[in-house]
Amino acid sequence: MGAAEPFETSVRMLQLAQDLFPLNRSITGAGLRQTLSILGQSVPIRIHEVASGTKVFDWVVPDEWAIRAASVRTSSGVKIVDIEDSNLHVVGYSTPIDRRMSLAQLRPHLHSDPARPKHIPYRTSYYTRNWGFCLRHEDLTGLPEGEYDVLIDSELFPGSLTVGEVVIPGDRDDEIVFFTHSCHPSLANDNVAGIVVCTELARWLLSTRRKYTYRVVFGPGTIGSLSWLWLNKGKLDKIRFGLTVVLAGIRSDLIYKQSRMEKSELDRIASAVVQREFSGKVIPFSAWGYDERQFNSPGFAVPFGRLSRATEEGYPQYHSSADNLSLLDGDALSASLDACMRIVDLIEANGVYLNTEPYGEPQLGKRGLYSGSGGAPSQDIQKACLWLLSYGDGHYDIAEIYRLSGLPLSAVLLARTKLLDAGLLKEHASVR
Amino acid sequence: MGAAEPFETSVRMLQLAQDLFPLNRSITGAGLRQTLSILGQSVPIRIHEVASGTKVFDWVVPDEWAIRAASVRTSSGVKIVDIEDSNLHVVGYSTPIDRRMSLAQLRPHLHSDPARPKHIPYRTSYYTRNWGFCLRHEDLTGLPEGEYDVLIDSELFPGSLTVGEVVIPGDRDDEIVFFTHSCHPSLANDNVAGIVVCTELARWLLSTRRKYTYRVVFGPGTIGSLSWLWLNKGKLDKIRFGLTVVLAGIRSDLIYKQSRMEKSELDRIASAVVQREFSGKVIPFSAWGYDERQFNSPGFAVPFGRLSRATEEGYPQYHSSADNLSLLDGDALSASLDACMRIVDLIEANGVYLNTEPYGEPQLGKRGLYSGSGGAPSQDIQKACLWLLSYGDGHYDIAEIYRLSGLPLSAVLLARTKLLDAGLLKEHASVR
Amino acid sequence: MGAAEPFETSVRMLQLAQDLFPLNRSITGAGLRQTLSILGQSVPIRIHEVASGTKVFDWVVPDEWAIRAASVRTSSGVKIVDIEDSNLHVVGYSTPIDRRMSLAQLRPHLHSDPARPKHIPYRTSYYTRNWGFCLRHEDLTGLPEGEYDVLIDSELFPGSLTVGEVVIPGDRDDEIVFFTHSCHPSLANDNVAGIVVCTELARWLLSTRRKYTYRVVFGPGTIGSLSWLWLNKGKLDKIRFGLTVVLAGIRSDLIYKQSRMEKSELDRIASAVVQREFSGKVIPFSAWGYDERQFNSPGFAVPFGRLSRATEEGYPQYHSSADNLSLLDGDALSASLDACMRIVDLIEANGVYLNTEPYGEPQLGKRGLYSGSGGAPSQDIQKACLWLLSYGDGHYDIAEIYRLSGLPLSAVLLARTKLLDAGLLKEHASVR
Repeated sequence: MGAAEPFETSVRMLQLAQDLFPLNRSITGAGLRQTLSILGQSVPIRIHEVASGTKVFDWVVPDEWAIRAASVRTSSGVKIVDIEDSNLHVVGYSTPIDRRMSLAQLRPHLHSDPARPKHIPYRTSYYTRNWGFCLRHEDLTGLPEGEYDVLIDSELFPGSLTVGEVVIPGDRDDEIVFFTHSCHPSLANDNVAGIVVCTELARWLLSTRRKYTYRVVFGPGTIGSLSWLWLNKGKLDKIRFGLTVVLAGIRSDLIYKQSRMEKSELDRIASAVVQREFSGKVIPFSAWGYDERQFNSPGFAVPFGRLSRATEEGYPQYHSSADNLSLLDGDALSASLDACMRIVDLIEANGVYLNTEPYGEPQLGKRGLYSGSGGAPSQDIQKACLWLLSYGDGHYDIAEIYRLSGLPLSAVLLARTKLLDAGLLKEHASVR
Repeated sequence: MGAAEPFETSVRMLQLAQDLFPLNRSITGAGLRQTLSILGQSVPIRIHEVASGTKVFDWVVPDEWAIRAASVRTSSGVKIVDIEDSNLHVVGYSTPIDRRMSLAQLRPHLHSDPARPKHIPYRTSYYTRNWGFCLRHEDLTGLPEGEYDVLIDSELFPGSLTVGEVVIPGDRDDEIVFFTHSCHPSLANDNVAGIVVCTELARWLLSTRRKYTYRVVFGPGTIGSLSWLWLNKGKLDKIRFGLTVVLAGIRSDLIYKQSRMEKSELDRIASAVVQREFSGKVIPFSAWGYDERQFNSPGFAVPFGRLSRATEEGYPQYHSSADNLSLLDGDALSASLDACMRIVDLIEANGVYLNTEPYGEPQLGKRGLYSGSGGAPSQDIQKACLWLLSYGDGHYDIAEIYRLSGLPLSAVLLARTKLLDAGLLKEHASVR
Repeated sequence: MGAAEPFETSVRMLQLAQDLFPLNRSITGAGLRQTLSILGQSVPIRIHEVASGTKVFDWVVPDEWAIRAASVRTSSGVKIVDIEDSNLHVVGYSTPIDRRMSLAQLRPHLHSDPARPKHIPYRTSYYTRNWGFCLRHEDLTGLPEGEYDVLIDSELFPGSLTVGEVVIPGDRDDEIVFFTHSCHPSLANDNVAGIVVCTELARWLLSTRRKYTYRVVFGPGTIGSLSWLWLNKGKLDKIRFGLTVVLAGIRSDLIYKQSRMEKSELDRIASAVVQREFSGKVIPFSAWGYDERQFNSPGFAVPFGRLSRATEEGYPQYHSSADNLSLLDGDALSASLDACMRIVDLIEANGVYLNTEPYGEPQLGKRGLYSGSGGAPSQDIQKACLWLLSYGDGHYDIAEIYRLSGLPLSAVLLARTKLLDAGLLKEHASVR
């Protein structure tokens, strides 16, 4: 299975987060491409470009957005806001402008959050052409009447939308997908945390030969997952299921959001791992949320869960300048990664196995599997053997036996190996 | 949908309750006919008479009962009880008597409730010929020895049992039935409250064209619902389901009692509406209770729920003179009516709908359904759109999506209309 | 049904416990045979001997063990431990030894329990040849250095393993099995309590003619139930289900452990009886536990529950000299027996019955089943009649109606009889 070395990986994830945080990501453009390029230094990433104007299902890939400068200054030249100070100051996808105007004219283009007056909110206007600035509410309320010089040196032009993916081929061509959005500028938990956890996950997946093929995908929210689905539309039947990994870096309960299919193999696996190994929570599917919505939609119907550290209600710093690097916690990132790894372990081991000595309990002692004897396995492993044998009637998979037994995942997985080695279990069928 | 104007309807219901309360209803006779005749001033009521002696399933319609006077007086003429003071003083269906007798002879015919000594209990003897009086326990215990003049000027004769119903035809001939018993004399919550709520409900149902045909039935308990079922026995397969509405007028939790079928469409609809919109409770079916028992019986097997403000355990004033008009609460009556209306709204809107753009999430913005844009719907309606689209795969009806989403019923119903108008949903099949 | 006379049976069970406690039972040998012989004085017990070396499924019946003497003495003859003081002092199946040795040589063969220093632990070594002594931890820690005279006068020889059973033939040859292990020496709750409850149960089962055939089996743990299964392997398809009855004598919640099949008829019956009639608990199946494991194994797949007064976690005195006769409680033994009897009552009465007057509620009054009338049944029995009629549609068995109704088992069983007598119910099918 291979456990992560917690300290090393958490340092590496925090370092990568620091590198990625300053970039001005959006759903297209330079910031997004730089991000994927940095990831490419750690893992072999494939880049896909989808041209502006491409119809992807009910959507159209928008023009590419470039931003060079953006500021508001008083007529006497005093800086009010400048993108140099924070990428959040300019509304994403703002159209260009260079004009002096009154506060009254400017005011409808200024956005603040009265509930969090000390922080810059995060705003975008992808599909409606507009321009605007975001600033602290306490700064907004202090603005004097007068004339302001407003500059946004931006460009919207036919270009392309970029999606990156790391493909880890396995023995089978059935695929498991991990998706994280990668379109948020200078926000730490949402979404630098998801990017760094997925990068480390890809690195770990590459380290061993596996049964299934894995794809770890980095794309813009909504239009990015739709574009990836569109690029792969001929082979979606290969996908068994997948997970979005987002908002994974804060000290807060680990949460598994179920897929729309709720009792799918994935849901049984991820729910049990998150609850039992990480004291986390499981929440039902909601049609509101992140890119899991796209995969779960009726047309694709790919069971897609979500691993995160927040519900649909968000968290106090959500979509504001308070969501910065100081919020990220190395232990939280490590445990999020670890949860992904344990879920993969159970996905790989899962299946229905038959007890080959089904008449009563096989004598474990004569096979060195009884905890009474010297060099024998722990009580937990011995108990796990009994559970796997007792439920080895063709109706239960490992995930279900793990859930029912209440035993640690490691004991169940080790017992499975020992029983296979001892010839007491044999594979019956895999579960879809 | 059309909401009730709470104040106006609650005043009207309380006024009707006042008119109905004094009548001496029983399972047959003048009081029952007068009651239906008063309802006929508000709604077009059809009257059915079923002759005494008619065999209805395992029962026989009893003789009609008329009561003109009833009293007990001391031999010196002092009044002990008199039906003039309360209809409850005489046991329902008492046979005639006119005789002087000792207290010892009279005693077995006097009924009181030691647990509620200040109130007259309510007693009947429909199917065993007998006579008797009900009085306050504190009055009973004070009776001196001596002779008493006992008079019951009643008559039992071949007549008929009366059932009233308001039929509101809809586009389809599938029917929804509301039933309330109408055989209790001078008891307010049980059962004047049910009668007035059902009358207002019928008035509201008549106000709009609907998909289903509705029948609001007023009949005596047990023998009345059985008689109605017997009258309609050739067309019971038209009934989708129904509800008894009883004990609906006191300040107490609104309660939905499930049908014997438990997961029927009706049960899913009514449970969700009562819990989510009225903070009410849902209790399982019980073979004990009101006329829902008859509809749910194995031979008819019509899913029949119950809306009330009491469980099978009753309430403190149950079946006593304490259940008088002072107990009725206008807000409680209004909310009970409102619950019936919201249940009807969801029955009418319910069905399985298919998402016509099922590959990912349709772009709501370009259709004016995204709450970011001006003039767009509320967050709740936008979320309801996402829920309806996400679950628009042919396996979920509106009632189930409403339950899963946790959103207000009004948002879900409005989103359904908007999505149908936008062509994003189309009807797949109705649910039985 | 026939209720036990609590006092008489509890005295008889405590007396039998006193007779059985001193015997040195093991999985073979004289103590086990003496135990069955004593039971034979109360009930007609059949004895089966299975020869050492017999292969039973994955196991082999071990040699028989005889023990005549066992002690450790200092070189000056001071007694340290002697089997005369407690059967627990010698490890079960100890090989013979007669030798002087140093404390260092002896030490690995001495077992104590530091967590319970005042009690002798119980140890065995059935399938690994070894010898040893068990003693109080406080005695062990006080042993001086020096030479010790160690004597175990035991013998391991080809003999046989003994299983006893009481067979109570019924009208059908479908069988219900009760199993209790009978291999523990001088331990009271585990397992004298199970033996005495099963003996009384067998006596009660013999007292009346019944629908099913019952077998009450007394055998050594694991190898004993496997041997019985092996002896009966040609006719296991006759067994509907069964129960182990163990650890039944202490003041502690009565616990029903579900079979591996969880929703089997047995599980529904026993869960409801234990929870509703005895305020007991129901725990899920676990692959860890007593002989229920063997019956539930995939090859046999006989639904086998367990009735006990402890979970898999045991109880404070478990497997130590503290589990002695002072722990047994007459009321606990009586209630355990009573639970077995009530479970049998419901097994016998269970089945699916059809309401013969299914159109509405039959008129109970005219059949003397209405609690209003004189000489009529109690409210509970009347309600039970309504439940049985309401659910008499061919989809519910008595066990399920009992569970749903919340009424006492006695009322439900009596109502069933009354309705069968009145012709209102007729048998539809039995449930497997």
